[in-house]
Amino acid sequence: MSAKSRELSIGIIGAGRIGMLHAYNLARRIPHVHVVGVADPRLACARAAAAVARADVVVDDYRQLLVRQSIDAVVICSSTDTHARIIVEAAAAGKHIFCEKPIDHDLDRIREALQAVDKAGVRFQVGFNRRFDPDFQALRQQVCAGLVGVPQLVRITSRDPAPPPAEYIRVSGGLFLDMSIHDLDMARFLVQEPVVDVFATGSAFDPAIAALGDIDTAVILLRFAGGAICSIDNSRRAVYGYDQRLEVFGSRGCLTVANHTPTGVEHWDGAGQHRDRLQHFFLDRYQESYVLELKEFVERVRHGREASVSGHDGLQAVLLALAARTSLQEGRTVHLDPATGLDAA
Amino acid sequence: MSAKSRELSIGIIGAGRIGMLHAYNLARRIPHVHVVGVADPRLACARAAAAVARADVVVDDYRQLLVRQSIDAVVICSSTDTHARIIVEAAAAGKHIFCEKPIDHDLDRIREALQAVDKAGVRFQVGFNRRFDPDFQALRQQVCAGLVGVPQLVRITSRDPAPPPAEYIRVSGGLFLDMSIHDLDMARFLVQEPVVDVFATGSAFDPAIAALGDIDTAVILLRFAGGAICSIDNSRRAVYGYDQRLEVFGSRGCLTVANHTPTGVEHWDGAGQHRDRLQHFFLDRYQESYVLELKEFVERVRHGREASVSGHDGLQAVLLALAARTSLQEGRTVHLDPATGLDAA
Amino acid sequence: MSAKSRELSIGIIGAGRIGMLHAYNLARRIPHVHVVGVADPRLACARAAAAVARADVVVDDYRQLLVRQSIDAVVICSSTDTHARIIVEAAAAGKHIFCEKPIDHDLDRIREALQAVDKAGVRFQVGFNRRFDPDFQALRQQVCAGLVGVPQLVRITSRDPAPPPAEYIRVSGGLFLDMSIHDLDMARFLVQEPVVDVFATGSAFDPAIAALGDIDTAVILLRFAGGAICSIDNSRRAVYGYDQRLEVFGSRGCLTVANHTPTGVEHWDGAGQHRDRLQHFFLDRYQESYVLELKEFVERVRHGREASVSGHDGLQAVLLALAARTSLQEGRTVHLDPATGLDAA
Amino acid sequence: MSAKSRELSIGIIGAGRIGMLHAYNLARRIPHVHVVGVADPRLACARAAAAVARADVVVDDYRQLLVRQSIDAVVICSSTDTHARIIVEAAAAGKHIFCEKPIDHDLDRIREALQAVDKAGVRFQVGFNRRFDPDFQALRQQVCAGLVGVPQLVRITSRDPAPPPAEYIRVSGGLFLDMSIHDLDMARFLVQEPVVDVFATGSAFDPAIAALGDIDTAVILLRFAGGAICSIDNSRRAVYGYDQRLEVFGSRGCLTVANHTPTGVEHWDGAGQHRDRLQHFFLDRYQESYVLELKEFVERVRHGREASVSGHDGLQAVLLALAARTSLQEGRTVHLDPATGLDAA
Repeated sequence: MSAKSRELSIGIIGAGRIGMLHAYNLARRIPHVHVVGVADPRLACARAAAAVARADVVVDDYRQLLVRQSIDAVVICSSTDTHARIIVEAAAAGKHIFCEKPIDHDLDRIREALQAVDKAGVRFQVGFNRRFDPDFQALRQQVCAGLVGVPQLVRITSRDPAPPPAEYIRVSGGLFLDMSIHDLDMARFLVQEPVVDVFATGSAFDPAIAALGDIDTAVILLRFAGGAICSIDNSRRAVYGYDQRLEVFGSRGCLTVANHTPTGVEHWDGAGQHRDRLQHFFLDRYQESYVLELKEFVERVRHGREASVSGHDGLQAVLLALAARTSLQEGRTVHLDPATGLDAA
Repeated sequence: MSAKSRELSIGIIGAGRIGMLHAYNLARRIPHVHVVGVADPRLACARAAAAVARADVVVDDYRQLLVRQSIDAVVICSSTDTHARIIVEAAAAGKHIFCEKPIDHDLDRIREALQAVDKAGVRFQVGFNRRFDPDFQALRQQVCAGLVGVPQLVRITSRDPAPPPAEYIRVSGGLFLDMSIHDLDMARFLVQEPVVDVFATGSAFDPAIAALGDIDTAVILLRFAGGAICSIDNSRRAVYGYDQRLEVFGSRGCLTVANHTPTGVEHWDGAGQHRDRLQHFFLDRYQESYVLELKEFVERVRHGREASVSGHDGLQAVLLALAARTSLQEGRTVHLDPATGLDAA
Repeated sequence: MSAKSRELSIGIIGAGRIGMLHAYNLARRIPHVHVVGVADPRLACARAAAAVARADVVVDDYRQLLVRQSIDAVVICSSTDTHARIIVEAAAAGKHIFCEKPIDHDLDRIREALQAVDKAGVRFQVGFNRRFDPDFQALRQQVCAGLVGVPQLVRITSRDPAPPPAEYIRVSGGLFLDMSIHDLDMARFLVQEPVVDVFATGSAFDPAIAALGDIDTAVILLRFAGGAICSIDNSRRAVYGYDQRLEVFGSRGCLTVANHTPTGVEHWDGAGQHRDRLQHFFLDRYQESYVLELKEFVERVRHGREASVSGHDGLQAVLLALAARTSLQEGRTVHLDPATGLDAA
Repeated sequence: MSAKSRELSIGIIGAGRIGMLHAYNLARRIPHVHVVGVADPRLACARAAAAVARADVVVDDYRQLLVRQSIDAVVICSSTDTHARIIVEAAAAGKHIFCEKPIDHDLDRIREALQAVDKAGVRFQVGFNRRFDPDFQALRQQVCAGLVGVPQLVRITSRDPAPPPAEYIRVSGGLFLDMSIHDLDMARFLVQEPVVDVFATGSAFDPAIAALGDIDTAVILLRFAGGAICSIDNSRRAVYGYDQRLEVFGSRGCLTVANHTPTGVEHWDGAGQHRDRLQHFFLDRYQESYVLELKEFVERVRHGREASVSGHDGLQAVLLALAARTSLQEGRTVHLDPATGLDAA
């Protein structure tokens, strides 16, 4: 598939909430692409997503999509523990791959998957959608254009409105791998240097989360090779909505992105001045970014270009999350080898 | 056409900028509808819009759409001077009608068109898209819910980034009919009472506009039956972008909607704190409202319900614009008959 | 009194709320000045203000201050109906004069007072304190520096938190002379051109105010010689606090000043994002302006310079308020002679 | 000194920039107090401050103030290395003491000074002025009132506009003791629990500061006994002005305080929307807090009450700064004994 004029044919693997969202966006919001089929062991889910995507093929086994010559690329939205295996098989089948984050929780399986991708020479993009948020894109372009000079301090606030169910948390890999991973990738996206030190601390205020051995509140510090320091603060429960803020401070100034609200209406009464509660959660806040990440994937594959969020990016984010976990458990700074991103200890 | 499950079939009449926009939205953003054909004497334009709308029929004469049984409704986006005639013919053909604002500049022709609509019993909606802007919708719902108590003062600021070409202004009907008409409708939408007094003053700072006998800067005051006063200020040229602000003040508080910017990035440097220039113009600022007005039209027609922005609304806005023109020309308050909206003088 | 090194000696006439405020500021916040005495028929009030001002002399008749050679200037804070008479006598006694606004409600008495000032050659400043508000000063300096180019639209919002008692309103001269007069002066301060047209409309939502034949809600439009249009909106009752906003729009941009709040604390919870209610009223909002207007008066008198807010300014504001009253009563635009500011009708 | 009606007599020790400021505030802004004398080895400085404070006594040796029976209290504004000694002597002389921060850099000398205070039974307040900032006061009252529920995350941003001269930095004790100490105290003020863990990381971007072995950029993490985590970020050079922000996030919501600007004027032009640069530095931003801390000191001493910012507070802030220094030097979390605040290692 390289002719500019051709539409890209897509198979969607996994028809849960995020698969459904990608199905809708591919059918409605993204040009030069069409969805051929949807695979999910829960056939009803697959059927619903196929209807939304106007796709003809509905299967319960993703392998039935991989064997189809007419499919150029797959979008992997299945559960995390299946990602690595599907990547290996899809690459072997010569399909370009868009895979939801994280690639996996296990470093060996990630490496195996990325090697399969390399060997097959297919395009691979990992679903760090926040990189495509228009506000964050604009902020980063301004950082790259030198508006803040040398970045020195980065602040990322990322708080969810409410924790997921206990059964989800149990298999999530913990706060750092499940939630902070987006912020760790954002830090790398903004500073564009190797991280050399990772320190993390955390607390569990919610007894149910504490009982699972996880935390619900954390601060992670990253130190980059050039001296910039990034602090990330996370919470599983912000009662006022989905709190997503960025700040990059440098030698020449500071850039910030504030939260979004459903409307811009402001109300003044005897008690004060009031605005909307923040947008509820990621599907509201990052709606556009989900469109834009796939648009980018489609365009890059169609024109034979490198993916903009690589397997390397996916691996590095996992390495940082694992380093944060080690730091929390061992109460020490984890020094990373700048060349590999591996714990230097 | 009344079965809930049926899709609505649309013909688009006029394939200029706004016709193109509606074509895209009908095809991509609005469910339960499809575009059958596009009519425009400029066949290339019709063809382009049909491609966007995935429509099969391309004609140079709108009558070729009106004769088609398969078309349930038409969306009229042709030049203003053709609206009344097309409405009459479309109504006679039994088509439901969505018509861009204003219906016409001439009261008799508006009345004739609306009578044809009434007689035919078709649905009719006028394209006051700003009523569907999510911020304005939320503000109005809060006004209706009593958050500001009795409305007493309404402020509407509406300033364009730059004036249209002289040839456009020459046939536009003047600032009040061309530009203020949206704001006059918004005032009625917010206060929901008859206007009893209209006063307007204006200036021409741009020599080219003065040479055409028009103004580029104006303030209009409306007094409603219940005593509320609305001030509208307009300018043809706001160098900082498209300035669209609302405020409703009442006995229990105040509601406001501020301007929109392309991104929420804020930049601090030695010179101060900076945010984006405002969104450039109406296609950016009111993007969603164009989708939502047609979605509403489609749903209401499909379910056999009254249109939400009626021919009466279209007529009243023109009456207010004409009253403003009279006030400016004669330097007096124009008193309106609350029952008819006509100049009581 | 002209030696730069000498302190200015002040007598305060009238020890009500505003006299008390000036007494405090003169004693505590303003250099190169001291208060010699305070006059008020209510001797207890005079005594209290003298204590605050660290003044030795307490009298019930202001004439006892005027005869004192040691007093350089008087600050007139008595009731409006006494202003003109005291000005005439103070001027005759060779005292420089700072007089609260308005000078009087009667044009002849204003003119007589100003003639007395001219004849005596004393300095005279009228208490339009808002001109000295740091935000408004900064905005005006930027207007003068050309940041908005040619001013085209000016918006002044000025709403009190609650109406004064009926007995006050009865003798206040009505909304325009009592409340709008500050805004009319502000419009002149910002645009710096003669006003050529005045139009006003208003409503009474409060039955008690309606019963007094006054209004509580108004919009005034001013048209300046150069074509700029100013709209002023007033209300006697804004339940959310003292609403004081300015905006100057011109060919090169727009300048605004927003409201002030007691603190900058913002609170986010499940219901939304909340900030303080606005500052309660003028003593909070314009605290600094009261210091700065007297500081300017003291410095100008000490250095023998013209006052920055002249008797002419005081007269023009009254003329505009009277024109607004005429417009409201007669339902017509009042055209003013640009040379004199008098009704041209 | 205990009679409520008596004025407090003050001696000022040290007439540098901050001594001058206190002299002005005591004379102009604070009731029930007068300044008897000023001591500074630089007699010209002492004279200037005495003139501002309207004080009669000017001496070069603070002991000449301590021997005066008429002096109730001293305000110590001399260089940090003299604080402990003067406290000991002033306490022995029975004077109440207001001392600028930090008490000292050396723990033994701090303890000795505080023991002298205890033994003498005099009142002692340390100059953590930011606790008295109206915004921060309001935020803390709302935290205490439970508006955010249990505090979980605290963020303090504190960045200076430009670094002090090298000679100042050399003797400053380093970034943590000189600059972060205010923020460390603020964290304790907001959370009101013992700190159990301290972690710090930092960088030197300015070669001149690096040459002195100091850092100019840092992030400090504090973990409180109840699990709350506070992150403090500091920079010696924010080109956009003095950046002072607070945020307290908890189980029920979030409270923030944003930066202050000289004016509230906003300017919109073709390049965007612009506001003032931030206030320049601490004398602008914390102007009111300097008045309010001394007002509180004066009132508490006059009424025989405990100081609101105690010697214990002064000691704890130094302990935290020293722990941060240790953490940075040794690359480890410093665990503190919750009972004493001492390094538990």
